[in-house]
Amino acid sequence: MSKARIIHPVILCGGSGTRLWPVSRKARPKPFLPLVGEETLFEQAVSRVAGDDRFAAPIVVAGASHGDLIEAQMHGAPHRLIVEPAARNTAPAIALAAALIPEDDIMLVCPSDHHIADPAAFRSAGLAAAALAAEDYLVSFGIAADRPETGYGYLHRGKALPGGFAIAKFVEKPDRARAQAYLDSGEYSWNGGIFAFRAGALLAELARHRPAMAAAVRASVDKGREEGTRFHPDADSFAAIEGDSIDYAVMENTARAAMVPADMGWSDIGNWAALHDALERDGRGNAVRGEADLADCSNVLAMSDGPRISAVGLEDVCIIVSDGEVLVTTRDGAQAVGKLPGASNQ
Amino acid sequence: MSKARIIHPVILCGGSGTRLWPVSRKARPKPFLPLVGEETLFEQAVSRVAGDDRFAAPIVVAGASHGDLIEAQMHGAPHRLIVEPAARNTAPAIALAAALIPEDDIMLVCPSDHHIADPAAFRSAGLAAAALAAEDYLVSFGIAADRPETGYGYLHRGKALPGGFAIAKFVEKPDRARAQAYLDSGEYSWNGGIFAFRAGALLAELARHRPAMAAAVRASVDKGREEGTRFHPDADSFAAIEGDSIDYAVMENTARAAMVPADMGWSDIGNWAALHDALERDGRGNAVRGEADLADCSNVLAMSDGPRISAVGLEDVCIIVSDGEVLVTTRDGAQAVGKLPGASNQ
Repeated sequence: MSKARIIHPVILCGGSGTRLWPVSRKARPKPFLPLVGEETLFEQAVSRVAGDDRFAAPIVVAGASHGDLIEAQMHGAPHRLIVEPAARNTAPAIALAAALIPEDDIMLVCPSDHHIADPAAFRSAGLAAAALAAEDYLVSFGIAADRPETGYGYLHRGKALPGGFAIAKFVEKPDRARAQAYLDSGEYSWNGGIFAFRAGALLAELARHRPAMAAAVRASVDKGREEGTRFHPDADSFAAIEGDSIDYAVMENTARAAMVPADMGWSDIGNWAALHDALERDGRGNAVRGEADLADCSNVLAMSDGPRISAVGLEDVCIIVSDGEVLVTTRDGAQAVGKLPGASNQ
Repeated sequence: MSKARIIHPVILCGGSGTRLWPVSRKARPKPFLPLVGEETLFEQAVSRVAGDDRFAAPIVVAGASHGDLIEAQMHGAPHRLIVEPAARNTAPAIALAAALIPEDDIMLVCPSDHHIADPAAFRSAGLAAAALAAEDYLVSFGIAADRPETGYGYLHRGKALPGGFAIAKFVEKPDRARAQAYLDSGEYSWNGGIFAFRAGALLAELARHRPAMAAAVRASVDKGREEGTRFHPDADSFAAIEGDSIDYAVMENTARAAMVPADMGWSDIGNWAALHDALERDGRGNAVRGEADLADCSNVLAMSDGPRISAVGLEDVCIIVSDGEVLVTTRDGAQAVGKLPGASNQ
């Protein structure tokens, strides 16, 4: 095993969180909301690697419109903010960060809009992933699956590696029967979008599989400008990139894809039902934020930023009152919230 | 058949309508809300007998706190308002009106918080009931039952009378099986709380079966005072009355109880599910008032006085947003709305 290298947390703030409308809004999207606990998801992402000298100050990648939110939620802690001139999905965002750190340093890439109940387990998995990354593996966290989820991609584990496994196969979102089979086999994990790379290895693989993207990222960094804690990549070079996810652009193409198992109470808080699952619930499965009177209800999430919610006889329903909007959805329907007129025409 | 006598519509405004909270509030309860159509239920009750010279100007019986609402909703039409010094249920309220009109005139007693889709059918039944009342029958409307409702009392029809039937029996709210048997038999109607009496006959039967109540009503009228269109019964005499319903006090005791069949699209709008049924609905059974986006919903009532409602995947649910309160109830749970903290602690 190679010696420990500096690990740079890279926190991605790209998600719009429209399925968490009406609480998540364009001006204050999902990462910057205190959805679980007192801290926002972004603050939790920062806290997870704070106060541990194995991790460097975080590098945050975000759009310009959220710069002030990020500064406020860093609470004065050292960091670097890479301001994306345009949203081009995760591959260019990660490559920007890779281009700005020493090529032999490790980057631990984390979305800012996930919840992780067990930060110590996250850090352990992060160190294991970093060790594999130091050997030039491109490492994905393999999230322990605990239900036949059809909303995520899966990783099929291959041969054992020190602290992890090779990835035998990336699997797109399966149907219910396949998801159940994956769960039963014990050989599959969720692809949670958390990665560790040696910066130089990531850029080399990107150059191999997406040469135009790699060149454009390089140009946008070379022509970029520093402004205090913020780095502004060149807008023209960056905007010209054809966006793609890191999975499609690199992970599914590289011969050195690896995974580390991570059982850490992870949730992407992908919709109101997922948030409901991540919250503490009473004996009937109800969770309340704000003022709510629930009569004969079970498995209900009731959240209000002001008006009282009164509910009778409901089961498996989420009621969200926020800033003049009232959303009522079945848990099963929660995935469709982002397509509502209110969510899509903000 | 006796000659036609003057028919005085007597409109009772006693109901609190807490099961229609949060729209129905103490300060503006159910009768004074435009729940079905443009007119309020009270305005509809007045309109049903307006412009027809077989009916005199209405006599309205209501509490003092609603006097101004009533004046406003009479829109200048002639009427008399009897101001109840206290709420003592329907028997004293009806007796007050009876004591204020000539004893040989007919009174047609109507709650102000019901909806009747077919006013012509109501007037026909009213005239038939008035004819029976002129023969000193105490007449209840027998509402055509179209479902095995367990929330209403039933009337079992007895021998035929001109234009109606004797009442063989009053039945309290039945359980589901009995309600179904009543419906199947074709011999039962709902007791809708609409009555016709000769004023003197009603007072005589009240004196027979509730002498103390009859005497107290008489005293409160004798010591009452006129004030413009308003009549104020003496408060002390009236408040001393032990309240009771006209059914318990008179109808179930008299030997001359009769009924006229009435098939007139009646609903007591007893809760949100009943209102939903009375409203026009789209092909999926949804009804919307105010701004609402319904996705994959069926049999949903969505009403808002401002904030947009967005709903996904719901079935048989009522969503009511009114004046800073948000109510979400299953149709089955709608009966329990009045017991919610919001409704009961106004």
